[in-house]
Amino acid sequence: MTKRPPSLRQKYSAYHYRAVPQEDTELTHVGPGTPCGEYLRRFWHPVAQSADLKDVPIALRILGEDLVIFRDGRGRAGLLQRHCSHRGTSLEYGFIEECGLRCCYHGWLFDIDGAILEMPTEGEGPYRGPLHHGAYPAREFHGLVFAYMGPPDAIPPFPNFDTFEAPGHTLSRGQPAGVSTVKPCNWLQVMDNVVDPAHESFLHTRSQGSLITDRNGRPVQELANLGELAFIQTPVGLLCQEARRAGPDIWVRSIEYIVPNIVQLAQVPTLPPTYRDGETRITFAPMVTRWRVPIDDTHTLELAFVRVRHGQENAYADRPSKVILSNYGGRPYDEMQRFPGDYEAQISQRPIARHGLEHLGKADRGVTMMRHMIREGIRAAAAGQDPMGVHRDHVGPWPTFGNDTVIRVAPAASADDDDALVRATARQITQSILQAPPMTAGAAIRI
Amino acid sequence: MTKRPPSLRQKYSAYHYRAVPQEDTELTHVGPGTPCGEYLRRFWHPVAQSADLKDVPIALRILGEDLVIFRDGRGRAGLLQRHCSHRGTSLEYGFIEECGLRCCYHGWLFDIDGAILEMPTEGEGPYRGPLHHGAYPAREFHGLVFAYMGPPDAIPPFPNFDTFEAPGHTLSRGQPAGVSTVKPCNWLQVMDNVVDPAHESFLHTRSQGSLITDRNGRPVQELANLGELAFIQTPVGLLCQEARRAGPDIWVRSIEYIVPNIVQLAQVPTLPPTYRDGETRITFAPMVTRWRVPIDDTHTLELAFVRVRHGQENAYADRPSKVILSNYGGRPYDEMQRFPGDYEAQISQRPIARHGLEHLGKADRGVTMMRHMIREGIRAAAAGQDPMGVHRDHVGPWPTFGNDTVIRVAPAASADDDDALVRATARQITQSILQAPPMTAGAAIRI
Amino acid sequence: MTKRPPSLRQKYSAYHYRAVPQEDTELTHVGPGTPCGEYLRRFWHPVAQSADLKDVPIALRILGEDLVIFRDGRGRAGLLQRHCSHRGTSLEYGFIEECGLRCCYHGWLFDIDGAILEMPTEGEGPYRGPLHHGAYPAREFHGLVFAYMGPPDAIPPFPNFDTFEAPGHTLSRGQPAGVSTVKPCNWLQVMDNVVDPAHESFLHTRSQGSLITDRNGRPVQELANLGELAFIQTPVGLLCQEARRAGPDIWVRSIEYIVPNIVQLAQVPTLPPTYRDGETRITFAPMVTRWRVPIDDTHTLELAFVRVRHGQENAYADRPSKVILSNYGGRPYDEMQRFPGDYEAQISQRPIARHGLEHLGKADRGVTMMRHMIREGIRAAAAGQDPMGVHRDHVGPWPTFGNDTVIRVAPAASADDDDALVRATARQITQSILQAPPMTAGAAIRI
Repeated sequence: MTKRPPSLRQKYSAYHYRAVPQEDTELTHVGPGTPCGEYLRRFWHPVAQSADLKDVPIALRILGEDLVIFRDGRGRAGLLQRHCSHRGTSLEYGFIEECGLRCCYHGWLFDIDGAILEMPTEGEGPYRGPLHHGAYPAREFHGLVFAYMGPPDAIPPFPNFDTFEAPGHTLSRGQPAGVSTVKPCNWLQVMDNVVDPAHESFLHTRSQGSLITDRNGRPVQELANLGELAFIQTPVGLLCQEARRAGPDIWVRSIEYIVPNIVQLAQVPTLPPTYRDGETRITFAPMVTRWRVPIDDTHTLELAFVRVRHGQENAYADRPSKVILSNYGGRPYDEMQRFPGDYEAQISQRPIARHGLEHLGKADRGVTMMRHMIREGIRAAAAGQDPMGVHRDHVGPWPTFGNDTVIRVAPAASADDDDALVRATARQITQSILQAPPMTAGAAIRI
Repeated sequence: MTKRPPSLRQKYSAYHYRAVPQEDTELTHVGPGTPCGEYLRRFWHPVAQSADLKDVPIALRILGEDLVIFRDGRGRAGLLQRHCSHRGTSLEYGFIEECGLRCCYHGWLFDIDGAILEMPTEGEGPYRGPLHHGAYPAREFHGLVFAYMGPPDAIPPFPNFDTFEAPGHTLSRGQPAGVSTVKPCNWLQVMDNVVDPAHESFLHTRSQGSLITDRNGRPVQELANLGELAFIQTPVGLLCQEARRAGPDIWVRSIEYIVPNIVQLAQVPTLPPTYRDGETRITFAPMVTRWRVPIDDTHTLELAFVRVRHGQENAYADRPSKVILSNYGGRPYDEMQRFPGDYEAQISQRPIARHGLEHLGKADRGVTMMRHMIREGIRAAAAGQDPMGVHRDHVGPWPTFGNDTVIRVAPAASADDDDALVRATARQITQSILQAPPMTAGAAIRI
Repeated sequence: MTKRPPSLRQKYSAYHYRAVPQEDTELTHVGPGTPCGEYLRRFWHPVAQSADLKDVPIALRILGEDLVIFRDGRGRAGLLQRHCSHRGTSLEYGFIEECGLRCCYHGWLFDIDGAILEMPTEGEGPYRGPLHHGAYPAREFHGLVFAYMGPPDAIPPFPNFDTFEAPGHTLSRGQPAGVSTVKPCNWLQVMDNVVDPAHESFLHTRSQGSLITDRNGRPVQELANLGELAFIQTPVGLLCQEARRAGPDIWVRSIEYIVPNIVQLAQVPTLPPTYRDGETRITFAPMVTRWRVPIDDTHTLELAFVRVRHGQENAYADRPSKVILSNYGGRPYDEMQRFPGDYEAQISQRPIARHGLEHLGKADRGVTMMRHMIREGIRAAAAGQDPMGVHRDHVGPWPTFGNDTVIRVAPAASADDDDALVRATARQITQSILQAPPMTAGAAIRI
């Protein structure tokens, strides 16, 4: 926890507010042996795109560890410590073989599980018995490569969210091949953005006109109206809800935070929605499931699944220009200044944001709750317990709760009454979601 | 103070002289809370050019603090701490409004005095009472933006040097718009150059032919003759004088150091000068008033005023090619080596020069005296007193003393006698200057 | 010495092998006052190419010290501490004069031995008696500039290896003018490569087809067969021997390590060799003598002599494309990955390799022995003794032992017997070499 300097009550008083407190190391440091690093290591994380595993290994850095990833001739993904066990040469210069990866320097051959299959310069010796190189389990799934970097005896089940199998849709990757989205800042401030629906009203809408479009490509100007915010804890994380009056309808947007580093969110619906016969309420399932994986304390990798309707193209992976560019780096500084997006808002909070200088308010309740959940998880892991989010005994897909819902509800007579009506409607929808998670319950949903 | 290794009395003995002592931290470190940093914060400093304050805010770093500067829709310059009080996003990505600057992320609006005018995501709460963001007073003056970054209750009068109002001239900025001169070294070694007239004879003249031109564009080869040096303390700083015989005249050049970080100097006169009827002595007032403002311990920003004659163009700001390029970075290394200038001489003294390795001599007396004056000022500020250079009760313009004077004095019979004559003449001129500062006294001067 | 984590006996156990021990500082740190730095300073080292000393001085860094090197108007090489004794300006911006180097700032003039010849701004004072600037002895020899940076009273004889005067050949430089080979890693891991003949079988041969060619330009695929390894201590260092059956001949390749940082090696012979009348054994002398000189702890400079036959061109210096590119940096990353060479193998062992993570084997005995010899030398120097390799009283050229020998020996009946025959033959050749070093003994050799 960090110490907060007193707030300023006088104008022109920067001189009295120059101290920059340290970051909250418990929540932000991710290297081996750190509390948060050990916590995050209790989960599977995507670390690369399958499409990028080709004929040369890839050097990567995850949670402060230098690694190399590859797919061998048998089609198996391998994730090894980067430096050869023999003399330390980087295996990024190694050669992929039918079975494993061979160091370029003296030809030691490593299986994907770390087994050292050959030490050609050594003949029979000198290392008797099976000797292993440092390896982590890796598994490809729908275009992403996942890894588990925690204690071998605590390996959790592979992720199985109910959103992974949406009828009529294919789970696909959220980026074109060869494109990796890296933000030069700590993972937690990227997650802060997830549990902060209010920023959509400002950063993406009011400031510059809406940068967010609905299914028909219309900029959704309705986002500029700050709605009724609610933050609801779920069995897997947090629903970050913003409910708004939209003409004859009430629109309840529930972006979902899933511990420890996942967001699920739906594309904004067309407003008013196209109700089918007799329909007065539509639930839109998440289109995106996105992980933010720490590279190290000050760099964060983003990888995502998107749900693509059968027969349609993947707007994220097949048409790079469709991706919201303001979430990525590489733009000219002048453009960053004139059209800032998530990238600029997040990375400029310092390489590691300083919570001791923040002034959080009602709209930041999601931030407060998420950090509390993470801190609880960190302490559970440190105590040798499974943190929340490790689903060991669950049979079947894991329920999740995020969605956008639009419901036809006639406006109340006064603005204040309508605000209350919007809040009440949002609460009812939340109740129904929590009782019957839409994707698991097989509700009639759209994506 | 730094410890000096013994000087070398034997050839080929570098082995015994390898230790590099630490820098003099009292004089060179400028961050918040450092002795020199607090001293420099007792003064107004230019921090930007007015011409650069346009429709986006500018991120800048002054005295080790990260700030953002802008001019709002009402035309008021604002200087704010860079990171938003809400969640820390950089205000360099903010939007300039009619009144103040708005953060891009959640729309908090900051007035130029730091008052937080709006927290749109918070409605009525949760911060009751006036809450402020860190701000410093900023003021535009003749094309430069000045700031005061010291304790609010110790704010000094705005600079008012007598050179600011030269008859027939306009005070203008010393650089083209968009050009900032940053030297990657400590501020003090840039100032060392100011109080060191002898370097003009070598760096700018002997080594490469004269790089310094008079009013008619003639390279002033006379500078190659090392003159009679004198260093005279004044009420505002130090006169660094070099007096030379120049044919039928004696030329007394007095470059002026003004505490803590200012130089005033005249353009070199044409020699022989064009005397008007009956005139036998001409005083040339400073053309340039230049500040060196620390960005941090190892970077220094230069901003200047030049005096431009009515109806003429500003040679510094309007014709960038006229600026002495050797004072700036960005040249190819080969050109830097073959035609070194102030930039190369200063930055290559290490990022922070090590006084413990210097061998100062007679020609370096100005350096010794200036450092002593700065150290006195640092200690005065630390003791809670106004350091020299803070003019609280002075009525009217503040007298300054720098100028070049040329006087017709027939040469003495012998070289030695003439050297004595030059020295005596210089002393007389100094006496008259100190008794009646030329600009304040309304003397007949030229610029 | 470094502490070694336990080796891994289980698959997927990287989690238990994440600790990265510190480097062996005794062997790897080279700055002033470090044990290894002081040891290396007991020897002459090449630090630049003569062809690069032109009309401007060159800034260089050797053993962690910032220096400047130049050849003055009298043709004498000078090596001075980089920062002027007066006020610290870098002498890389100085002007070369007939006698010495003059600082650009105030014109102090330094002789090559450090004597300060002029302080033009000081006239007669204030420094009485001879004052010197830090200088090191430098000497040009066959196109390289050597320096001695150790204690003045311990200066050793200039190198005089017997390979420096090969009949019919001229000693020439190993690189084109203006090309300096710098590896961004510690010097010791570059040396590890020298005493490691087995890497030729893998890195340069098996992995990618042979990158090593014989005198006729044929790729030497025979290198792919890992031969019989032997490591033999010599009076000057270590012979790293690999003996192989090559058809009717036995080929004994002996790469020579010479303390502290030198390798001598022959070009691979044509196989089978062209015996002259009655000849059944040919000794090929080293073509290359190469130094690896630490720039600092994490950068290493390579400079070499090659022996060029009279009337032929210098393949290394005159035709840059002939140089084995994989020993150099600057290639595109994709090419580095697909065709790794010594550069990639060495620099990717981390900026300073961590011995505590190595698993050395039989083939690495040369590494173990060389590090032991260096450690002995470090401790001798620290104890005030001349380390091995300082030849004070030797009359005439200093014997060296490296060579490739090919001898006609009919194969034995079985593979095992032939292996034994190869080993025995190699031992005999070693005996004869140690008794009569080929170059010194005036043996009939080829280059």
